[in-house]
Amino acid sequence: MNGAESLVKTLLAGGVDVCFANPGTSEMHFVAALDQHPEMRCILGLHETVVTGAADGYARMADKPAATLLHLGPGLGNGLANIHNARRARTPMINVVGEHKTEHLAYNAPLTTDIEGIAWPVSDWVRTFASADTVGRDTADAIRAAQTAPGQISTLILPADIAWTESNGPAPAPDIPDAPVASGKAIDRIAELLKSDEPVALMIGDRALREDGLDLAGRIAAKTGAVLFAPLSNKRVARGAGRVPVNRVPYVVEQAQAMLSAYKHLVLVGAKEPVAFFGYPNTPSRLVPDDCAVHLLAEAHYDLVGTLDALVDAVGARGSAPVVNELNRPALPTGAIDQDKIAVMLTAMLPDNAVVADESITTGRQFFPMTNAAAEHDWLQITGGAIGIGPPLAAGAAIGAPGRKVVSLQADGAGLYSAQALWTQAREGLDVTTLVFANHSYAILQGEMRKVGVQNPGRNAVDMLSLDRPKIDWVHLAKSYGVQASRATTMEELCDQFGRGLAEPGPYLVEVSL
Amino acid sequence: MNGAESLVKTLLAGGVDVCFANPGTSEMHFVAALDQHPEMRCILGLHETVVTGAADGYARMADKPAATLLHLGPGLGNGLANIHNARRARTPMINVVGEHKTEHLAYNAPLTTDIEGIAWPVSDWVRTFASADTVGRDTADAIRAAQTAPGQISTLILPADIAWTESNGPAPAPDIPDAPVASGKAIDRIAELLKSDEPVALMIGDRALREDGLDLAGRIAAKTGAVLFAPLSNKRVARGAGRVPVNRVPYVVEQAQAMLSAYKHLVLVGAKEPVAFFGYPNTPSRLVPDDCAVHLLAEAHYDLVGTLDALVDAVGARGSAPVVNELNRPALPTGAIDQDKIAVMLTAMLPDNAVVADESITTGRQFFPMTNAAAEHDWLQITGGAIGIGPPLAAGAAIGAPGRKVVSLQADGAGLYSAQALWTQAREGLDVTTLVFANHSYAILQGEMRKVGVQNPGRNAVDMLSLDRPKIDWVHLAKSYGVQASRATTMEELCDQFGRGLAEPGPYLVEVSL
Repeated sequence: MNGAESLVKTLLAGGVDVCFANPGTSEMHFVAALDQHPEMRCILGLHETVVTGAADGYARMADKPAATLLHLGPGLGNGLANIHNARRARTPMINVVGEHKTEHLAYNAPLTTDIEGIAWPVSDWVRTFASADTVGRDTADAIRAAQTAPGQISTLILPADIAWTESNGPAPAPDIPDAPVASGKAIDRIAELLKSDEPVALMIGDRALREDGLDLAGRIAAKTGAVLFAPLSNKRVARGAGRVPVNRVPYVVEQAQAMLSAYKHLVLVGAKEPVAFFGYPNTPSRLVPDDCAVHLLAEAHYDLVGTLDALVDAVGARGSAPVVNELNRPALPTGAIDQDKIAVMLTAMLPDNAVVADESITTGRQFFPMTNAAAEHDWLQITGGAIGIGPPLAAGAAIGAPGRKVVSLQADGAGLYSAQALWTQAREGLDVTTLVFANHSYAILQGEMRKVGVQNPGRNAVDMLSLDRPKIDWVHLAKSYGVQASRATTMEELCDQFGRGLAEPGPYLVEVSL
Repeated sequence: MNGAESLVKTLLAGGVDVCFANPGTSEMHFVAALDQHPEMRCILGLHETVVTGAADGYARMADKPAATLLHLGPGLGNGLANIHNARRARTPMINVVGEHKTEHLAYNAPLTTDIEGIAWPVSDWVRTFASADTVGRDTADAIRAAQTAPGQISTLILPADIAWTESNGPAPAPDIPDAPVASGKAIDRIAELLKSDEPVALMIGDRALREDGLDLAGRIAAKTGAVLFAPLSNKRVARGAGRVPVNRVPYVVEQAQAMLSAYKHLVLVGAKEPVAFFGYPNTPSRLVPDDCAVHLLAEAHYDLVGTLDALVDAVGARGSAPVVNELNRPALPTGAIDQDKIAVMLTAMLPDNAVVADESITTGRQFFPMTNAAAEHDWLQITGGAIGIGPPLAAGAAIGAPGRKVVSLQADGAGLYSAQALWTQAREGLDVTTLVFANHSYAILQGEMRKVGVQNPGRNAVDMLSLDRPKIDWVHLAKSYGVQASRATTMEELCDQFGRGLAEPGPYLVEVSL
């Protein structure tokens, strides 16, 4: 078998059986090898930002990496922003980037680029295959790197000649190293703190935000009076009825400072110390008060549930009952559409066990705090601030969580970065209902513009921050990609159309006029 | 004035008065400075691949660089593929990439990336501003680098604090170095060759493909019997009635080899030795025969017209009459649509002084050779092989060449990479008529797949190379972005609809059913 087939077989042996792809000529032998292995599910994206964003959504739900297939340096570049988001989510991902035939590189053909140079700024691990005989071993190393807790970006670069050259075959699945646990001494130190009278906040992130981690954190909070926080942006949070509620650190600096001002200790479990999203002239980067001590109990790559479990014992919280959300389906709102009413609708209508892909930006600031009482669900966020993750994230999540309804909460400006993912939703028949919040502007930037002191923006500023001349028609846009769609201008219409999307299988999109 | 305003004023002083933009929070002070200078035309793209592709098209027509405004590393990454294309075209471009406040970088906020690392693989010149007081000088250096013949990619990285800090003001326009000319000795050597009995091909590229360069090359060919060639992919070629025709080296390796096999000497004037686009198992990377001597008379950064002018004198061709195209408007084809009939229609209908933006890939392989007899026009190509340049290239060309009709010849698969540029065409009222060749597949790859020996592709290969399940509806897609559109299924409909697009101002799109 050739190098390309060794690569495919090693991926499959390592449990990687979904490949999001947009191939080119230099990857044809790899495509041929994928074609010989129908047990690898190949899913086309019309642009690489769809490919990499979908791989992120898939892995967040499937708890294992997908492969991506990208065409040379420009294909990798096109996928770069959503690889960045995935890396900030600590999502496992294995990128396979095609490269010219090795001898062809010297001729500096038009598509020649420094692929490793483009890969490194968004990868944790990069390797260019040097021989067909090491393809198996190199691929196993890439899988190990990707799956090392909590998840990393591996990028493999595959020269065309290595793909077509005879190889000595695939490698077996690699051993994945066990995640480390916090030491007993560290657990005891934090337990003492929690048992003291000092006000303590427990900030939990990453894998600790699943149901088991939240339950343990909830017991600690119930026993010790500690308050739970999550970071602003998270890979996946278990939420809704029966789950322990957790507040996120707000985006707005002053709000975040106010929330954190009450604590003398901040204990980090799988989360980093919260910092401002952007630096401003007269606000600090740090959000915690100067007299608050920050304690790093466990970094994200630790066994976070194991660490919380040990902490439960150390504070004697095993028998404590955590506060959990109670299901409350409010009456459906009516009349003019506003952000709070949309949150009420979501609380009332989210189906059991839904997956929410949230790139709602300004419109959705209150969606997370206001929907605790919905049916149980998982909530996925944009993690790296690179807009355009929503439509592909939703597509990937649907593939990673078959049988579950995906609700895609989408800001319009961000959605226009990767609307091509709607076509993948249509082609694969994915169960995604999208609400596009059409304020026809980069509303977040209009707010930032006012902060800079521009009260009466002129034509240049208005042009760069608005999307309303002409208004984009999302109903036409969705239909062009094969997704049924409608427009809602009142809450009655919105509830009705959202319900239609939820009731039917396959993708549906509602343009929410704001 | 602050650093941001020094930057804007230096750009304006250097003649850079168009800025393609997609800003973010870290660029708000720069946006505010742009807003204070309405003489800088700011044009929003809905995705950075639109921003950078449009900047390329603009500069190709305006013969001076545009600025781009990109948001941090992910914004630069999104624009990377079309910066790569521009770099391969040797288009001048000045990217301004926002960066966090300098002190904020240590906090590793979600959008923190290695911007210089992302920039270098696609830039000729990169600098991060280190002080507000050097913004003027650094910006002038960036303009000088971009305008150094034949054109380079300059990337400036602007930390937010340098944008808002008081500066000592702008710098004047930099001196642009004169392009060098080939030495008299080199000219004489090539003249001797041309006067010999050996078969010589003259391959001319870049600036030599404008009307003046072609006229000089045509005189040399008429006098000496040398044959003229152009590279496969070119920034801009002057074509049509009254212009000297020039054949390009074909994409298919065997065809290129056959074309070049007749020559014992290949003289390069602003072109590189032609090489295969991709490396294959059993075909060479070099296209010229082994017994053909390659002579590099002038690299692309030379004064190419001056060099050809000297060569005209050296071979005594001043009085020779070059072969030029004669205008011939054929009858409009009828019946079923095919590629050759489309070429005939273009020959008949291209308006005087049109600009053709060509990303027609497989459908358009014969458009260039078959349209010599059209009215005079300029032809712009995808130069770096990174698909998705077409719609933004057309938008930028329309801004760079006001008063001229732009005809955008667009493959459907490539067009789906950057269809958002249609919105910019609508917003700016750009005079672009687009023909989308809807074969609903990556047809070029289906051919490459057969070359690899896959005759009966299975589901994975079919899925990755086809766009027909579901078919994308380009009429809906265009309308969603505010561009009027229609679908043509016969040549009669196509001629009629193309004529409608040409007759009316503003953008129009025809989906050409193939």
